[in-house]
Amino acid sequence: MITLQDCQQRDATDALRPLRDLFSVPPGLIYLDGNSLGVMPKSAAARAAQVVSQEWGQGLIRSWNTAGWFDLPQRLGNQIAPLIGAGQNEVVVTDTTSINLYKVLSAALSIAEEDNPNRRVLVSERSNFPTDLYIAEGLCAERGYTLKLVEPEEIAAALNSDVAILMLTHVNYRTGAMHDMAAVTQAAHAAGALVVWDLAHSAGAVPVDLNGAGADFSVGCGYKYLNGGPGAPAFVWVNPRHAERFWQPLSGWWGHAAPFAFTPDYQPAPGINRYLCGTQPIVSLSLLECGLDGFKAAEALGGMAALRAKSLALTDLFIALVEERCQGFGLGLATPRAHAQRGSQVCLTREHAAGGALGSGAFAIMQALIARGVIGDYRAGDGGVHKDVLRFGLTPLYIGFEEVWNAVEHLRQVLATAEWQKPEFNQKQSVT
Amino acid sequence: MITLQDCQQRDATDALRPLRDLFSVPPGLIYLDGNSLGVMPKSAAARAAQVVSQEWGQGLIRSWNTAGWFDLPQRLGNQIAPLIGAGQNEVVVTDTTSINLYKVLSAALSIAEEDNPNRRVLVSERSNFPTDLYIAEGLCAERGYTLKLVEPEEIAAALNSDVAILMLTHVNYRTGAMHDMAAVTQAAHAAGALVVWDLAHSAGAVPVDLNGAGADFSVGCGYKYLNGGPGAPAFVWVNPRHAERFWQPLSGWWGHAAPFAFTPDYQPAPGINRYLCGTQPIVSLSLLECGLDGFKAAEALGGMAALRAKSLALTDLFIALVEERCQGFGLGLATPRAHAQRGSQVCLTREHAAGGALGSGAFAIMQALIARGVIGDYRAGDGGVHKDVLRFGLTPLYIGFEEVWNAVEHLRQVLATAEWQKPEFNQKQSVT
Repeated sequence: MITLQDCQQRDATDALRPLRDLFSVPPGLIYLDGNSLGVMPKSAAARAAQVVSQEWGQGLIRSWNTAGWFDLPQRLGNQIAPLIGAGQNEVVVTDTTSINLYKVLSAALSIAEEDNPNRRVLVSERSNFPTDLYIAEGLCAERGYTLKLVEPEEIAAALNSDVAILMLTHVNYRTGAMHDMAAVTQAAHAAGALVVWDLAHSAGAVPVDLNGAGADFSVGCGYKYLNGGPGAPAFVWVNPRHAERFWQPLSGWWGHAAPFAFTPDYQPAPGINRYLCGTQPIVSLSLLECGLDGFKAAEALGGMAALRAKSLALTDLFIALVEERCQGFGLGLATPRAHAQRGSQVCLTREHAAGGALGSGAFAIMQALIARGVIGDYRAGDGGVHKDVLRFGLTPLYIGFEEVWNAVEHLRQVLATAEWQKPEFNQKQSVT
Repeated sequence: MITLQDCQQRDATDALRPLRDLFSVPPGLIYLDGNSLGVMPKSAAARAAQVVSQEWGQGLIRSWNTAGWFDLPQRLGNQIAPLIGAGQNEVVVTDTTSINLYKVLSAALSIAEEDNPNRRVLVSERSNFPTDLYIAEGLCAERGYTLKLVEPEEIAAALNSDVAILMLTHVNYRTGAMHDMAAVTQAAHAAGALVVWDLAHSAGAVPVDLNGAGADFSVGCGYKYLNGGPGAPAFVWVNPRHAERFWQPLSGWWGHAAPFAFTPDYQPAPGINRYLCGTQPIVSLSLLECGLDGFKAAEALGGMAALRAKSLALTDLFIALVEERCQGFGLGLATPRAHAQRGSQVCLTREHAAGGALGSGAFAIMQALIARGVIGDYRAGDGGVHKDVLRFGLTPLYIGFEEVWNAVEHLRQVLATAEWQKPEFNQKQSVT
């Protein structure tokens, strides 16, 4: 049996433990929702004050040059690049994940139309993050493609000669299951399809090697594991072999080859810069750099490899503790046990019948945990193959082993008593 | 002759003068570039600290509900609505002006295709803001339309039976010339075309009445006259008669009818909410509210009508002083003299020959002014009908009459000496 003392001992000998001091984790909170919104780096408050009071307040329009606002999308992109296996000047930070997905899917469709005009199917996962499916649904309707949704185990069989594009999220938001990016990309290419990867739950959470996998397009999120702040702008990467083949449709001034020439006709900038569009929210954009500084600090301690090792140790511990201490409460494990198939979160299912008239009770259990200061989140099932899920993100930059022990102990207490059945825990909604 | 004392007297009796105290205008600076980036409201520093340290740092994911993040696009939209003649729940703040223009042009094209499939021309102004033209250029190419660019005086004649959409910026960024929104909209409708208005240089600068004019679609900017901070998110309005006719193509989770149901298929939200897409940059978005508070404070002093009267008084003064004190330096007036045709800026041309080997010298003159602490900006001409321009934005919320006198006096001194010819003023670029 794992004890609290074991967990405390692991924190005491954790070489990455000092990284937690870079972050402002609210006292008394066990925050296991960094996969929805990462915690605040301590440097963010001073950086916000600088950008607002100095760069905006004093520098005003001059700050586009003097404070480097104009270079921010590239500068931040170059900081993200090593976390995702991208090269320098291959990534820009801009807009939102949904909008960047629209850009890359549009470009991928244009390439597919030219190279393989008879392929008219875009394949994705039925439990892909919904906004990705909405963007794909709209584009497919507009351009005469069929969006085919399958279960993860059906992907290989779905890659037939009709498929133009395979669009996947690397780590599934509902289960924490991770695709083998290299193998899936290779299989898709062998079948003649392009691959678009959403790294929303991967960047900063697990090692990613886009160039190593030979991926085609990728987008990702700034405010989850990258700790960029609420709604921080997103990133976009395009394999250099594709970057200049087409315009993406959101052809705004910042993606122009000569953005200050004010010419009436559009000439796309070279390389990834053409994936920029309009003026970016500079304050939010600047704060992302504070989040990325955490990964710079981690470099000296082993970087993403060390963070990955700790992430797996945390999720292993979480799973082991749930299985030791929460038996008989109707919980199941949605997250794969195999390390190679696991992201940085643990997702627990609860049988629909387990809550009696209250259904699975998963929503109420999470509300009860939140009331105790254990923040995870809940994702509803579809009544069929996808069950209600309790989701716990374990961010290795700032989460410790004792916190995992305490979180599971709270879960045990909520389940062992009637606490989660209280009416106040059975009403409400939360956000991604 | 107008004297400095006259101008000081006008400040002393200006009922709107107290509004300047809401803003942090850097000492010693005469900031006439509020049409590129508005100055910082004094409340912004504390608001940034609150959003970053409290809402993000302490509230974390809970702030989507507890701090009202989820309602921000609508709440800010409802604050902008009275400034542009829109109704409540008809405006949302989100994304960038370019992206919002893509949304509304896409919807307008879809409506035109259904109602008038034989109309295949989109008309705009050749000197419209370039990013607007880039977005239109891309969409026209994608959907088989012709983008026809004309001079302002040619618009009426261009509205023939081939025209599906007229897309205009209400106040021209290069000249400050303002269209008669009601008359132009009426003429376009009489000719069977839809009208899209970009309010980038209008919202908060001049009274606008979208519903009164019967306009179809509109977008606008948060960081110019609305003082929302660098790259503050933009706004979008759609006439309720069109809002639900089509999806716009950027169909992300925030525009879904049930954003937390996580269903795999997209169902657009009712009304303007379907123009939302992905997760917004909350810190930048929140700061826009500080800018909008300035207009709330102006309400008690006469609101947009009083601001408009002061704006015209400021631009009248600027023009009169230039004509009294800067004669013989090759300057011309690009901005219309008629009040009804003028925005809140004064744009001066300089003859190309006036600078001898240095060309028009307009760029260098502006650099010399900036070095003296008079911040305006420069826009290059096209060597033809559009001349090089010195641009001065006169924001009635915080600019005073004595500042106008001093700005023109600096301009006179820069021109009367060889100061602008110095090599250091003849190299570099600036940003919109």
